[in-house]
Amino acid sequence: MVENIFRGRNVMITGGLGFIGSNLAKRLVDLGGQVTVVDSLVPEYGGNLYNVDGFRDRLRINISDVRDRYSMQYLVEGQDYLFNLAGQTSHMDSMEDPGTDLEINCRAQLSILEICRHHNPRIKIVFASTRQIYGKPDYLPVDEAHPSRPTDVNGINKMAGEWYHILYSNVYGLRACALRLTNTIGPRMRIKDARQTFLGVWIRLLLERKPFEVWGGDQLRDFTYVDDVVEACLLSAASEETNGQVFNLGSHEVISLKDLAEMLVEVNGEGQYTLRTFPPDRKRIDIGDYYADFSRIRSVVQWEPAVSLRDGLANTISYYREHREHYV
Amino acid sequence: MVENIFRGRNVMITGGLGFIGSNLAKRLVDLGGQVTVVDSLVPEYGGNLYNVDGFRDRLRINISDVRDRYSMQYLVEGQDYLFNLAGQTSHMDSMEDPGTDLEINCRAQLSILEICRHHNPRIKIVFASTRQIYGKPDYLPVDEAHPSRPTDVNGINKMAGEWYHILYSNVYGLRACALRLTNTIGPRMRIKDARQTFLGVWIRLLLERKPFEVWGGDQLRDFTYVDDVVEACLLSAASEETNGQVFNLGSHEVISLKDLAEMLVEVNGEGQYTLRTFPPDRKRIDIGDYYADFSRIRSVVQWEPAVSLRDGLANTISYYREHREHYV
Repeated sequence: MVENIFRGRNVMITGGLGFIGSNLAKRLVDLGGQVTVVDSLVPEYGGNLYNVDGFRDRLRINISDVRDRYSMQYLVEGQDYLFNLAGQTSHMDSMEDPGTDLEINCRAQLSILEICRHHNPRIKIVFASTRQIYGKPDYLPVDEAHPSRPTDVNGINKMAGEWYHILYSNVYGLRACALRLTNTIGPRMRIKDARQTFLGVWIRLLLERKPFEVWGGDQLRDFTYVDDVVEACLLSAASEETNGQVFNLGSHEVISLKDLAEMLVEVNGEGQYTLRTFPPDRKRIDIGDYYADFSRIRSVVQWEPAVSLRDGLANTISYYREHREHYV
Repeated sequence: MVENIFRGRNVMITGGLGFIGSNLAKRLVDLGGQVTVVDSLVPEYGGNLYNVDGFRDRLRINISDVRDRYSMQYLVEGQDYLFNLAGQTSHMDSMEDPGTDLEINCRAQLSILEICRHHNPRIKIVFASTRQIYGKPDYLPVDEAHPSRPTDVNGINKMAGEWYHILYSNVYGLRACALRLTNTIGPRMRIKDARQTFLGVWIRLLLERKPFEVWGGDQLRDFTYVDDVVEACLLSAASEETNGQVFNLGSHEVISLKDLAEMLVEVNGEGQYTLRTFPPDRKRIDIGDYYADFSRIRSVVQWEPAVSLRDGLANTISYYREHREHYV
């Protein structure tokens, strides 16, 4: 079904030159969608023009910021689907500059929803939320009923951004849903620094033949391969059952960070890491173990992860072995 | 203890010319506090200079908006206590102009906390939150562990504003706590319209000898008299046990809106009301029955409501009988 539903349809992706956005864009042009990617190219965020290399001429690229409401208003017009993925993702940046995080993750979201409500009320919206809003889990695996107790400004603002989407669905009938992503891995992720994910830095250092650092090591985590996240986005967009709902993504596999480091070195064929205790400024926002119960999305749209962690890591390493120069 | 703790101390109240703020200011000057009230006097909000009539010369009044960060930075300097009560309170306004609600209830709160963190890290903050963040209750009475499921933009933004306070306490050791207020009644409330509370309009119409409207009527609610809210603010400010915590306020009495209307007419000695079904634009954000479990604040700072609903209504009516002209 998802194979045909996007053919000839107008699809907009905010954060479309970023990690997940560009992988989603690639898939959507292959499915025959008329894709507009919107990205701010703020250097600290995930956007990278190289992410659409090879399929750039099959897309419409519009460089603008979700905070710019007039460009959003123009771009949203006539779209059938909006994958709303743009966001500030760095937890540390959100603590150092909370106002910017709020502008992007709250104010711009509210503004996009107001635009949709007034100018394109039939659009379907899939919003990228995050496990960060749960905070330190009370129980594992974490399901969607788990209380929200964010441990940083980013988590609070993402929580508000997600709630706006659900509210606009409940109150105005806007067709919006939210996916609470866990750690996503794959080609096109930011590896320059840890702003998007710590794993980016691990992979960069590994390929530079330098030891990478594992903080703590015992924390359990789940990882979703980006193609599986893309599939979840498409399935959620294609279903009417998802409106007004939030869904965890997750994995069949749960792994400690130390074992993940081992697996990464193994898959790479070589490499070193050092275990160190948590730096104090990270410790205070650390959440301990986390992994998701993703049975809700499985039952509603029959999503489940198809790519194993090992294969996901192998694909990722192989991508950066070839394209590293465009990401550092 | 509370009798002495504020003597000679510097106390700032945002929203200090509003309903709760002005009652708190009155009490604090009586306790010997050096009180600065800060208020925007935005006509749609609760601020009213008449609210400090009779004790105006014992206060410092500064007219400015919590969105104005330079005035906040100047004013926060040297304060021992901040009662952070300024907010946009109208649910309908938050739906019609969500951006303004966000500026006041999110952005300004984050900005005030950043100012405190950088310029006055020893200040103690009591934030006025709201039961609105719970949404439609899963169970009654609602305790603080109840999930947050706001049903309007105001509820989402107040939830974020509350979380910023708790986060800044957890992460930076800022001494902040939040009180989740339920319906507050008493002298100095806004009676011009329903922006602050529906009860304001009921009382105004009653005194104008016009019938007031009860929407629905069966919904159960709890009401706190403003002097009891003031007491909760003072007790929470005076205790170190409250840092990083949220607390429900509530009442020993639970009453349906219809019975409340009856009681109001009875206390007033005359009056009429009409029952009508919920207008559609209110129905979609209605929450059904609500009343709070306030055992947490009772056990932590020994607060409990002292004024009965009947006495509270009688005091309120008697105040507006005398001072109505300054509020309409």
